[in-house]
Amino acid sequence: MTQYFIAGIDIGGTKIAVAIASPAGAVIARTSFPTDIEGSPGESLTQAVEALTALAETHQGQLTSVGIACAGPLDFELGNVLSPPNMPRSWQNFPLRSFVENKLNVPVELDNDANAAALGERIYGAGRGYGDLVYITISTGIGVGILSGGKVVHRLGEGGHVTVQPGGELCGCGARGCMEGLCSGSGIARRAQAQLHSGRASRLLEMVADVSQITARTVEDAARAGDEVATEVWGETVELLAIGIGSIMVLLAPQAVILGGGVTAGAGEFLLAPLRAAIARRVQIISVEARPLLQAALGGDSALHGALVLAVRALLRT
Amino acid sequence: MTQYFIAGIDIGGTKIAVAIASPAGAVIARTSFPTDIEGSPGESLTQAVEALTALAETHQGQLTSVGIACAGPLDFELGNVLSPPNMPRSWQNFPLRSFVENKLNVPVELDNDANAAALGERIYGAGRGYGDLVYITISTGIGVGILSGGKVVHRLGEGGHVTVQPGGELCGCGARGCMEGLCSGSGIARRAQAQLHSGRASRLLEMVADVSQITARTVEDAARAGDEVATEVWGETVELLAIGIGSIMVLLAPQAVILGGGVTAGAGEFLLAPLRAAIARRVQIISVEARPLLQAALGGDSALHGALVLAVRALLRT
Repeated sequence: MTQYFIAGIDIGGTKIAVAIASPAGAVIARTSFPTDIEGSPGESLTQAVEALTALAETHQGQLTSVGIACAGPLDFELGNVLSPPNMPRSWQNFPLRSFVENKLNVPVELDNDANAAALGERIYGAGRGYGDLVYITISTGIGVGILSGGKVVHRLGEGGHVTVQPGGELCGCGARGCMEGLCSGSGIARRAQAQLHSGRASRLLEMVADVSQITARTVEDAARAGDEVATEVWGETVELLAIGIGSIMVLLAPQAVILGGGVTAGAGEFLLAPLRAAIARRVQIISVEARPLLQAALGGDSALHGALVLAVRALLRT
Repeated sequence: MTQYFIAGIDIGGTKIAVAIASPAGAVIARTSFPTDIEGSPGESLTQAVEALTALAETHQGQLTSVGIACAGPLDFELGNVLSPPNMPRSWQNFPLRSFVENKLNVPVELDNDANAAALGERIYGAGRGYGDLVYITISTGIGVGILSGGKVVHRLGEGGHVTVQPGGELCGCGARGCMEGLCSGSGIARRAQAQLHSGRASRLLEMVADVSQITARTVEDAARAGDEVATEVWGETVELLAIGIGSIMVLLAPQAVILGGGVTAGAGEFLLAPLRAAIARRVQIISVEARPLLQAALGGDSALHGALVLAVRALLRT
């Protein structure tokens, strides 16, 4: 008897992950390969489609539908990638959805990676049971996915760029004091580097060959070891995140907030515990205790699982 | 032939407005009366119900459904008022929805006033054509209603309390630097009064018998006349609102933002024009030009019209 599989594709700037799963979302098989920076998106996607077809054949089944999570911004009407800052330029305006639809002849759903990760955590991860959910990824950048009644809403938003320090440091987007500019992995590293360039002594200097090699992870490790500069930078990160996440919580009153991304995955409770306390100090109008701040349960796979949720939706749409 | 009317009730701290309308929302007749601060909510609501019944009889018709807009917070499951800060204490935990349902024996829908005003503007006012909409009322307090695809989402949120000045002045909610604490009508008045208490000369002093009588309207009038203190306070209001509204726009990327409430109605473009410019300066990641900042078209009737939208919904639910 032929089996039927749903398929997910998670397209990032460095790698593309694909998986096939049962229609209930249990992953059967998966693989990944580096994003071809030099080549065309068509070549990378052909590779993804062939990988999915091969996985399905190996498991004696066929694909019913595909979900795609991709770094945004996206044009949802057309199913195109627009001008993703974290993707090669050749991806600009590429018709992602129709390309995969034409290759596989099955329905395809598309969403950006933060929205997909929110869906993935909601159905298969830390968000189970919470229909009104905010997912925030803290990695190279900061992305926010918002669910209401289990559905993605406001999916064109760029919540990483809420203001957390009015008049503060210039962000890559051109505005000042954005949460992403200050609290993303690159923002944390840059603020630590600035402290060292100003001549302060720190254990951080012994941990890298050059100041430019300091990452959020280096700052976290040094803060854990009690280094003063790193502790200050980490504490400021927590306070700034509490301003941004606190305001998002006040505005939306979600049932839960899930934090994912590389910085969160690395730091875990070393970030979450002081962040919960800072948000509780800053937010009074709604009960934050009733709205848990949770670590993503699917780690780097939140968006891939979200792609599988999108595939289920594409399947139901047919 | 009997006519059928939908009915709306807008319950505020100072007055209760009621209207009957055709099922398409055209208001047939309306009336209002002061909220009975001394009496019980049951007496006020009985008055509202009797007024609606009388209006329907006068126009030879009967009521099909009722929508109620009420100052929050509300318990949506139970249809109760909780502990509205702008309502008499006797309203606490009053079972609003079931009381009206039992009196009139028709289906009743309930929402808070900011959400209802968002719906009212969306269907009958400045929001026509915009499904993804944010409505912000700036009056005694600041309330935010959020629509996605034309539906109210995140309706437990208290968007007036997003942080616009980290570490700033204490708000009535107990947190610091909230948009409502600084930029509501009372916040504007209080910041102007603080400037005068510090001894600065100002035309404001000639406009009132006592500094405590200064309102947002006084500040607006003095700023229009070029007074230095009032101009500063007004300009700071604009910048603080731009931080809060800008962050809400970045997070949600709504198709439009509608500003209502007494302060907006009074000031009009004297508030909106500099606010648009300040938001455009502060927000870079999404196009704010493509997302118009509009004045509410229904003025003080946004929430009453929203109650009529709720009545249509109650009607369709049956």
